Amino acid sequence: MKKILTPMNGFSKLSKFEKIDLIVKNYFSDSEIAKAQFKKFWHSDEAVQKTIDEFSENTLTNFIFPMGVVPNVLLNGELLCVPMVIEESSVVAASARSANFWLTRGGFNSEVISTTKVGQVHFIWNGEPSKMIQFFEKVKSTLLTTTKALSENMEKRGGGITHFSIIDKTHEEVGYFQLLLEFETCNAMGANFINSILEVVGRNFKELVMSAEEFNDAEKDLQIIMAILSNYTPNCRVRTFVECPIEDLNDPSLGMSASEFAEKFARAIRISKIDITRATTHNKGIFNGIDAVAVATGNDYRAIEACGHAYASRDGQYRGLSDISLANGKFRFSLEIPMALGTVGGLTSLHPLSRLSLDLLGQPTAAELMSIVATIGLAQNFAAIRSLVTSGIQKGHMKMHLMNIMNHLEANTNEREAAKKYFENEVISFKAVREFVADLRNYE
Amino acid sequence: MKKILTPMNGFSKLSKFEKIDLIVKNYFSDSEIAKAQFKKFWHSDEAVQKTIDEFSENTLTNFIFPMGVVPNVLLNGELLCVPMVIEESSVVAASARSANFWLTRGGFNSEVISTTKVGQVHFIWNGEPSKMIQFFEKVKSTLLTTTKALSENMEKRGGGITHFSIIDKTHEEVGYFQLLLEFETCNAMGANFINSILEVVGRNFKELVMSAEEFNDAEKDLQIIMAILSNYTPNCRVRTFVECPIEDLNDPSLGMSASEFAEKFARAIRISKIDITRATTHNKGIFNGIDAVAVATGNDYRAIEACGHAYASRDGQYRGLSDISLANGKFRFSLEIPMALGTVGGLTSLHPLSRLSLDLLGQPTAAELMSIVATIGLAQNFAAIRSLVTSGIQKGHMKMHLMNIMNHLEANTNEREAAKKYFENEVISFKAVREFVADLRNYE
Repeated sequence: MKKILTPMNGFSKLSKFEKIDLIVKNYFSDSEIAKAQFKKFWHSDEAVQKTIDEFSENTLTNFIFPMGVVPNVLLNGELLCVPMVIEESSVVAASARSANFWLTRGGFNSEVISTTKVGQVHFIWNGEPSKMIQFFEKVKSTLLTTTKALSENMEKRGGGITHFSIIDKTHEEVGYFQLLLEFETCNAMGANFINSILEVVGRNFKELVMSAEEFNDAEKDLQIIMAILSNYTPNCRVRTFVECPIEDLNDPSLGMSASEFAEKFARAIRISKIDITRATTHNKGIFNGIDAVAVATGNDYRAIEACGHAYASRDGQYRGLSDISLANGKFRFSLEIPMALGTVGGLTSLHPLSRLSLDLLGQPTAAELMSIVATIGLAQNFAAIRSLVTSGIQKGHMKMHLMNIMNHLEANTNEREAAKKYFENEVISFKAVREFVADLRNYE
Repeated sequence: MKKILTPMNGFSKLSKFEKIDLIVKNYFSDSEIAKAQFKKFWHSDEAVQKTIDEFSENTLTNFIFPMGVVPNVLLNGELLCVPMVIEESSVVAASARSANFWLTRGGFNSEVISTTKVGQVHFIWNGEPSKMIQFFEKVKSTLLTTTKALSENMEKRGGGITHFSIIDKTHEEVGYFQLLLEFETCNAMGANFINSILEVVGRNFKELVMSAEEFNDAEKDLQIIMAILSNYTPNCRVRTFVECPIEDLNDPSLGMSASEFAEKFARAIRISKIDITRATTHNKGIFNGIDAVAVATGNDYRAIEACGHAYASRDGQYRGLSDISLANGKFRFSLEIPMALGTVGGLTSLHPLSRLSLDLLGQPTAAELMSIVATIGLAQNFAAIRSLVTSGIQKGHMKMHLMNIMNHLEANTNEREAAKKYFENEVISFKAVREFVADLRNYE
């Protein structure tokens, strides 16, 4: 690696061209090749490129992900074709297999339980907690009034602030209180709306405390630590499930009876509930599906991940998120998970590909999108557990892996076919495939 | 939305063109426009496009993300320029501000604590647990021998199986045991390697049990539930920190004294330790940085998220991941986090843009990449907490948001400048900006 010794000052002020020039000069041995690589992924339409560039900062090029679809997702009686953006092989194929399996077994059923978003103003105040709580109750409606200008439009759409309270946390940290606000943000994820309101509430609350007659000088000293939405929204939650008589699970691909499959499947779910080491991977698989749809629709996957995983630990042990029941001869597999999504605002309507995804989904509301996203999470989990308790996951994975290696080796169609056949019953490693291809080429 | 009533059979067998044709016909009112949108994002180089397509399945187009860089990251004494792929505005800018702030205050220090990967074979066996444990100890070395063909290459590179044990979980689920394997996978994330070994171990273990003299017929009946790596790798962990005398934090941008800033900052960190609602968002911010580098380098962000969040709940309460100390007049801010990364195998060397990222980072080892990724996580967290406890986060966010809205309205340079000026002290909402631009346009 080239070592650079002097910081690149004023970098952010440079044009994109200048930034690339400086970087390739400093960090690459062959700067012309590197420069060409950065440029190779620019979009040919300058307006599109400008839009993408301005989503972020110091942008030099585009990173591209394959965007695929899962056809035939029967959800609440409608046939959807769901877009997924993911770089991991087998994920889209797995969701598609699940969709297909459940297509003839009643499909997926999903409903939104609640859509409450949350934000907090964290502050420090050293005084008698009951006095602060009393004061809050007195000024609460005044404070709400000061947010009207900001929430007017949201209220027109049926949203706004739905709950406003104070929480005494002084037993956990000296002088620590929260103002807790709940929101309905309709089809928006709502981050900007919520944060704007919280910052105003925090500022105005501090001013009200400073000018309050009932407080002495020491009590007038309130410190706002921060005002910010929470990504933990346990009451913005969706439930999705599949259900059929156990005997209807019969399928030649299982390689076992329906009841044996159901029992093994249920064991795998129970194991995810008792062992964090398994639970983590179990949930990771669910998020393979969830994130792929979230990304495709312009939603923030970090927010969804943080919320879902924190929720998985809500009772003091981190557990698998999906649930199973085999009661009354029925196989019922479900997922209840919180997530805050938007179908307006943010990237959803600004990114041309999110727009395309939302068009493909028929312009869903945020609640409908919650149902769709959770359904693909469940579909993904079903596919993963099904593979795990039947043939194992390596069979499918390695087939994809083989094709990736063949690409890397720039194999032609004949070589691909030969490799596919040869490695059907052989262990696939990069070395083995490279040697196999080298042998082929030597014989030609 | 157009309702389709008949499943699209044989979809996966269609060519990309045929898939798009079928989808636009079924789901879009103007199929020609939709078709053009899908094609608009194809890469002009067919070989590149083929590579991207084959990462996944049913691929129709590419989803593009802006790829930016954080310059001047001083890490362990070296100046790095770190690639980040993220669609959320302000993230790259925030990391860059942190990098800049710490550039003159000693930079970031990072070290890998351990690199242990984990996998499990979960099985059910109904018998006396001590008998099973004894049997396992007897066949352990035989079992290990059966993995030699698979691990030979990894061993040449210094890796392989490092630990192999049995765990009795029968007190949690009837008959439930685990074979627990630990691995060193060097510069590979190791998923394929680990899963291949686990499946072989599971199969061979079952066979050994079936043919064991010491077991009666009932005891010979062992059921492998699943064999799979775990994404929970608490012992594949890295620690990164910044440190300086508290008075050196002095900076006009803080708007307060160094000691006041340090105290407020520490409060914010403590709050993230006691309140799940805050902790979730706190960690979400860390992953903004972590995921962006992970994506840029071809690593699986779902695996990293699952591991980090589960780790955040390891003591029974989900907590913020970063730590603060103000002891001895020093501000020390640190992050200790597990993550399994690779710099060879998987997508890292197959995706042309991951390759470019790794070149930009000077071809780091997996351990070096852990240090870099964690550092950007810490940088991101520092920037977020700094904003939150000083000016609030909306100021920066809304500036970016304004530019996104202006793009949406296809504003020209003059309009952008006018809006920037006008909205410096006004509340930014889509409606307000649209009205402002409409006014401008009416006067022209």
